[in-house]
Amino acid sequence: MNVIVGQSGGPTSVINASLAGVYQAARKAGAEKVYGMENGIAGLLEGRLLDLNALLDEEIKIELLKRTPSSFLGSCRYKLKKAEEDESEYKKVFSLLEQYQIGWFFYIGGNDSMDTISKLSEYGKRIGSPIRFVGVPKTIDNDLMITDHTPGYGSAAKFVATVMKEIIRDATVYGTNYVTIVEIMGRNAGWLTAASALARGEDSEGVDMICLPEIPFTVEGFLKKVTAMQKKKKSIVIAVSEGVKLPDGRYVCELSDNVQDVDSFGHKKLTGTARYLANECAKALNTKTRAIELSTLQRCCGHLTSRTDITEAYQVGGAAVLAAQSGKSGVAITLVRLSDKPYQCTTGTVEIERIANFEKKIPVEWINSTHTDMLPPFLDYARPLIQAELPPFYVDGLPYHITAN
Amino acid sequence: MNVIVGQSGGPTSVINASLAGVYQAARKAGAEKVYGMENGIAGLLEGRLLDLNALLDEEIKIELLKRTPSSFLGSCRYKLKKAEEDESEYKKVFSLLEQYQIGWFFYIGGNDSMDTISKLSEYGKRIGSPIRFVGVPKTIDNDLMITDHTPGYGSAAKFVATVMKEIIRDATVYGTNYVTIVEIMGRNAGWLTAASALARGEDSEGVDMICLPEIPFTVEGFLKKVTAMQKKKKSIVIAVSEGVKLPDGRYVCELSDNVQDVDSFGHKKLTGTARYLANECAKALNTKTRAIELSTLQRCCGHLTSRTDITEAYQVGGAAVLAAQSGKSGVAITLVRLSDKPYQCTTGTVEIERIANFEKKIPVEWINSTHTDMLPPFLDYARPLIQAELPPFYVDGLPYHITAN
Repeated sequence: MNVIVGQSGGPTSVINASLAGVYQAARKAGAEKVYGMENGIAGLLEGRLLDLNALLDEEIKIELLKRTPSSFLGSCRYKLKKAEEDESEYKKVFSLLEQYQIGWFFYIGGNDSMDTISKLSEYGKRIGSPIRFVGVPKTIDNDLMITDHTPGYGSAAKFVATVMKEIIRDATVYGTNYVTIVEIMGRNAGWLTAASALARGEDSEGVDMICLPEIPFTVEGFLKKVTAMQKKKKSIVIAVSEGVKLPDGRYVCELSDNVQDVDSFGHKKLTGTARYLANECAKALNTKTRAIELSTLQRCCGHLTSRTDITEAYQVGGAAVLAAQSGKSGVAITLVRLSDKPYQCTTGTVEIERIANFEKKIPVEWINSTHTDMLPPFLDYARPLIQAELPPFYVDGLPYHITAN
Repeated sequence: MNVIVGQSGGPTSVINASLAGVYQAARKAGAEKVYGMENGIAGLLEGRLLDLNALLDEEIKIELLKRTPSSFLGSCRYKLKKAEEDESEYKKVFSLLEQYQIGWFFYIGGNDSMDTISKLSEYGKRIGSPIRFVGVPKTIDNDLMITDHTPGYGSAAKFVATVMKEIIRDATVYGTNYVTIVEIMGRNAGWLTAASALARGEDSEGVDMICLPEIPFTVEGFLKKVTAMQKKKKSIVIAVSEGVKLPDGRYVCELSDNVQDVDSFGHKKLTGTARYLANECAKALNTKTRAIELSTLQRCCGHLTSRTDITEAYQVGGAAVLAAQSGKSGVAITLVRLSDKPYQCTTGTVEIERIANFEKKIPVEWINSTHTDMLPPFLDYARPLIQAELPPFYVDGLPYHITAN
């Protein structure tokens, strides 16, 4: 019996740790061959498979894989049509899976990738296929339902909190009026932007304002708050989600002049929110401003990861194999928190329909009444996820990565 | 006898290692008190001094200081008028220095800061003051004359090369047409942008094009090169200096609509080059694009530093004290490379006039003939400077910093 595994959606720093978990657990569970889909389901449809037994044939390669950011197998943003509308892709996938004698199918991804698992397992059930389909969660956005959190979030949150501490130090050195606006990923859920609240501590004043997509945003209200803050404090550092929206539902970045396009899932490309708001501050206040977009750095920062996150990413990969081995299909692996202090977490499974195509947002009771900061329940939730480090292997001064070709 | 030390200009990740070097060497050389200027010469003129004996009274604080990015003492961009034009500031400075019984005056900074040391030592000589003035080089820009390189450059270069490797991995996962343009600091000298060439190796295809301010830039020529490159390769990653200029001398970013202002040294605020070029690519080619500005992250990335750089930053601080102790004044410390392989480096001194207000650019013979890449002499020059790491002290998941207040 052989196994296949793919990666889909936006990369994370630890998505390859899940791949390592799937690979090692599958081999241990008796899989003869473990195939990787090149570029996810899109590559599978073109018959592009990688032989992971050959690519990961030494222990050192597994360790490198855990320390290599971004999808080792390549990724895609490919949405399967509904089987009722067009069965051809499904026929092709199942014929390929039979050809390669695949018993278990694993897909590492976020919301949209769980949709793929859901459709394939549903179709498989309908045609009586014995192949088992299991989803392995990953996303820096942390917006999956049911699971306590998603692998990928902890490392991205650690990067965000770390660079916010550094940006705050940089922004205060001149002792002059200065508004720094940092734009952080998160289309509809502000989990990653909220992680900037972790920067505050005895050695850091922390960020001064956090703007989440969960809370309707007005430019006037924003400028009023910044004006009030800068009367008390010269350097103001603000974390703003790329997804903040006006009360009428438009994204704030749509107010600016930036070029926009739409991906195959219909998501608008969001960028320019920080720049737009910095320009508005420069016009309204007597202050220098700076807009910083963390951009892709926050999702590919393999040089600064959370060891907790890497360990859990590896564990969910292994748990997915155990779920398939025990006969489950059409499920996703979840992380189940047992306690906050001390932090303890285990894995579980959930029917894929309960997780696909939903988005988990931040509970409003975790946001303060003026909508500028996170409350202690959020900090207690997020702090354990950024603990400990797993440094890269440095070769000649730079992190060394493993590549598939 | 007491000592005073200040930090000036843009922060770096290792500027505090030089402060640690000055502090420890000065105490060892017999200085009773070591004062820090809050916000450099600007703060000194207001009598704002910090008592470093109290702030750095434990070994652990020195170690934290070495691992804390951005200017611990605060910084300024303050240009002294010429003494012939206005003597009042000079009188004030020297009266304060006498009041605090200062024997040696150290200033850690770049080009503009060396101008301050030059003016003060010149004035001191003229009035017969016994106070000795020594400049301690720092700048991520690496644009100081005479010195082989500047403390601060190695860590910023390591950050740039590391995140370029990560960005390249992120940009290739979808296997689609994609042009990523990364904007890197460096107004007139492209040293930091050139460091992106270090990303290439057996595990990374490296960046596809490097655009330096040393080479006149045309948008048409740029688009032609990108078009040709994308015919061979779908994901193109380009490192572009914020300071690239058109043949008529205008900055490329002046073609865009961004808000601009000018600092007290008359430098224009440069930003938006990558965004402008990404938009031009999107218009001219059938490709997705992404603009990434590394922004302040590249100069405050205390979480990813070069141990070589930190060690040298500490050494130049100590060498400045030894220079003053040996009777020198009106000099700056330099780094003198003894050999490339193995890398060996020592410190020297240079008359401050030979270093202040000049800018060192990249030799054109280190750039390839098509102006897209760096040649081996540059790699041999830069590679030793990014070697080895000095990780932060992590507390509760984040780098811990020392603060002055």
